[in-house]
Amino acid sequence: MASKAAAVNEALDLSLPLRYPEGLVDSMRYSLLAGGKRVRPVLALAACELVGGDEAAAVPVACAVEMVHTMSLIHDDLPCMDDDGTRRGRPTNHVAFGVSTALLAGDALLALAFEHVARGCAGVPAARALRAVAELGSAVGADGLAAGLVVDLASEGSPVGLPTLEYIHVHKTARLLEASAVCGAVVGGGTEEEIETIRRYARRIGLLFQVIDDVLDVTCSSEQLGKTAGKDLEADKATYPKLLGVDGARAYAAELVAGAVAELDRFDADRAAPLRHLARFIANRQY
Amino acid sequence: MASKAAAVNEALDLSLPLRYPEGLVDSMRYSLLAGGKRVRPVLALAACELVGGDEAAAVPVACAVEMVHTMSLIHDDLPCMDDDGTRRGRPTNHVAFGVSTALLAGDALLALAFEHVARGCAGVPAARALRAVAELGSAVGADGLAAGLVVDLASEGSPVGLPTLEYIHVHKTARLLEASAVCGAVVGGGTEEEIETIRRYARRIGLLFQVIDDVLDVTCSSEQLGKTAGKDLEADKATYPKLLGVDGARAYAAELVAGAVAELDRFDADRAAPLRHLARFIANRQY
Repeated sequence: MASKAAAVNEALDLSLPLRYPEGLVDSMRYSLLAGGKRVRPVLALAACELVGGDEAAAVPVACAVEMVHTMSLIHDDLPCMDDDGTRRGRPTNHVAFGVSTALLAGDALLALAFEHVARGCAGVPAARALRAVAELGSAVGADGLAAGLVVDLASEGSPVGLPTLEYIHVHKTARLLEASAVCGAVVGGGTEEEIETIRRYARRIGLLFQVIDDVLDVTCSSEQLGKTAGKDLEADKATYPKLLGVDGARAYAAELVAGAVAELDRFDADRAAPLRHLARFIANRQY
Repeated sequence: MASKAAAVNEALDLSLPLRYPEGLVDSMRYSLLAGGKRVRPVLALAACELVGGDEAAAVPVACAVEMVHTMSLIHDDLPCMDDDGTRRGRPTNHVAFGVSTALLAGDALLALAFEHVARGCAGVPAARALRAVAELGSAVGADGLAAGLVVDLASEGSPVGLPTLEYIHVHKTARLLEASAVCGAVVGGGTEEEIETIRRYARRIGLLFQVIDDVLDVTCSSEQLGKTAGKDLEADKATYPKLLGVDGARAYAAELVAGAVAELDRFDADRAAPLRHLARFIANRQY
């Protein structure tokens, strides 16, 4: 995982050379190259390899999903959204560069993600790259991230049941992780059956990611998280710990890991090892 | 032009059916279906036909460029940007739906644009659709719209010369009009030479569009424009009338029309008629 993440960091650096207008490009690079676990790109690379593709074929989609993720963090942190001042232990993008530039840096990163897939997929059949573009777009728009966020915002301060909470997290978090894995499998030349199996694995991983995130928000300090802790409670947001209790949320997480790992049974055990490991890594992360 | 615009309006309506979460989709549709001249989609359709393509092939890119344009209007109007309350004679998106939803509606429309090209281009070779995705992405990001806006914002209140003003407008306005025409020509199967000729035509049209916009901002009332007039002057923004005077700006517009129309000489005169007409339509618009 570490070697894949390092390769992604290098590719991300090359994907966005510093140039005029520096005010914008600096702001984009500030958030894009801020580190983080690179879970989504690693998922894309591992899914590509799992279906027998060459890791190099998935580097553009790996970078693209991280660009989309970075856009979502920048826009989420804006004053009109979560109004967060700290991210990964540093000032958030709008605190460092101003709100207008942060807004535009997010827009530009979102556009760059699609451009990067379209231009970078040399050696990948165009139809596969195009399918990755469609998958990624759907993960961000009115059937993905934006939908999850709107429902999430609407749910603040009002009682929300498990179905709505699941909708929020499937869309806000799981869809992009799902798209990351699916894009990797698509450019890697996976069969329809392989792609759909990987989609089910990744959707569980995505939900797992959010369940763990919710748990960490109530059990960790801001210092450990590198971002403001306890924000969900303060905003009276619906979370898994709130609906299931911390222990109940942890039990649900265990169930999701088991389900995700079971999906991998149809693949060669050795080849599936990185994705099995990734599921457990997400389940066991401490911050 | 009117019949092309009507076809685009119908295709846009179908591109985004109302569905859950209505709060988001309503907001997207509110701005996307608000009318307007549909200059960018018409440009895409006309460029496709000019190179001998079937108009139907360009409908997805025509919708996509309008989605991108709509995103840019929604985000431009936000309080952290131009803070505008009226657009096309109606409350702006964030006034009608709230700032968070407007932000997310813009993000979702941007993602939808790329998804729509990727999914909608059945019958178009995948390599052409992919090239349209790349062209569109580049028009929005750090070499396009976002770059123009950042430089524009940075120039407020400080003296700006013609080269910077030209940079701003080429990126803020012309790049997307250019991409509209180029995407149409690309999916229509134009030769490289045809595509580049159409690019030069559209870049001039794009600059023309902005020069006229600048002129109208100082010569029209808010009622005529359907948006707040005189904003540029008030914000002490660099504009063509400010640097060249209103007459100088009009002379520059005439030069751009002549240059754009001259590019069309290499095409059959009858087939080029719609784009010649479009150049003059933009030059002569009164609001």
